[in-house]
Amino acid sequence: MRGKFIVLEGLEGAGKTTAHQVILAQLEKAGKNVVQIREPGGTPLAEKLRHLIKHETEEAVSDKAELLMLYAARIQLVENVIKPALAEGKWVLGDRHDMSSQAYQGGGRQIDRHLLETLKETVLGKFEPDLTIYLDIDPAIGLARAIGRGELDRIEQQSLDFFYRTRQRYLELTQNNEKAVIINAEQSIEQVAADIQQAVENFLNIAK
Amino acid sequence: MRGKFIVLEGLEGAGKTTAHQVILAQLEKAGKNVVQIREPGGTPLAEKLRHLIKHETEEAVSDKAELLMLYAARIQLVENVIKPALAEGKWVLGDRHDMSSQAYQGGGRQIDRHLLETLKETVLGKFEPDLTIYLDIDPAIGLARAIGRGELDRIEQQSLDFFYRTRQRYLELTQNNEKAVIINAEQSIEQVAADIQQAVENFLNIAK
Repeated sequence: MRGKFIVLEGLEGAGKTTAHQVILAQLEKAGKNVVQIREPGGTPLAEKLRHLIKHETEEAVSDKAELLMLYAARIQLVENVIKPALAEGKWVLGDRHDMSSQAYQGGGRQIDRHLLETLKETVLGKFEPDLTIYLDIDPAIGLARAIGRGELDRIEQQSLDFFYRTRQRYLELTQNNEKAVIINAEQSIEQVAADIQQAVENFLNIAK
Repeated sequence: MRGKFIVLEGLEGAGKTTAHQVILAQLEKAGKNVVQIREPGGTPLAEKLRHLIKHETEEAVSDKAELLMLYAARIQLVENVIKPALAEGKWVLGDRHDMSSQAYQGGGRQIDRHLLETLKETVLGKFEPDLTIYLDIDPAIGLARAIGRGELDRIEQQSLDFFYRTRQRYLELTQNNEKAVIINAEQSIEQVAADIQQAVENFLNIAK
């Protein structure tokens, strides 16, 4: 049986790393063979692109160039890792996928929505996650956590407005989306973990 | 006055390097301040992408990933180098531009024409060269020359069929295109140079 593709989405400091561990443990307990990935990255070429996207400092990176590199890394990951794993019956647990581009580049950077949708459709076609878990948090709270972790990368060094626009787009994309669950990530770690486990439990029951 | 953007196109071994020198000398003699570029590349980020496009060997590069990297490098070059140079009245002499993607990825790799046109339009809009000089050569002849120069890169290591399809698309794109000139690159070096000089001379007269 084809595996399932579960993706974590959310702003910096929303708690994706902790959530990843919670879901991983839960899926393995349910007997799933889990492949873990992160975007951008996850293949040799995609990791090199990740480095360029996050750490290019020799010149200003145009918004479109950033977006195209993100999609280059994504399609490489989808074709060389995600699709083959799903076909083998493995479950794939991802840290970010296409919704990040829609939210950050579309909402945050305000790249034209039509361009983004066209790119998504031409590059990915109908491929999408079976379940997206979106960790919703006020950017001011999330960034304070992220700053506590150390240096921020090029994308994380944006104004707070950028992140408010990103969050707004995330909410538009997840509300009324039957393949997405919104988790209130401003709650205690324990409560966030419990909400995530419930969402994954529901999904496992449906996916049976 | 805005400068002009002249691009050389053609298969490996068509003689683009020699042609570049011929045109450069001619433009400088005509008093133009010339910026020389090559694609993919021409900016710090675009050169890093060029390296990934040409020399990635750790894994198979998907056709779409290659195409997206080419466009990322291209828009970076257009926005950070070509447009500012033209605005300053400089002339830009390019080794390859968008037509290469249409010919190699569209013709050679047989990527869907609609996808390519959509990508071109969404990324570049109406931006295009003022003059394209296409050096037309039988791939068998061109490749024999290229092989004589040493090792071929990842893209140059394609079957001859790939290059025949690429040439076919080049011809489709340049025939009946008032912004393109087709040069028979199978002639002697002297005759090719003379034909190029004539084409550039005609263009200079119109551009006055």
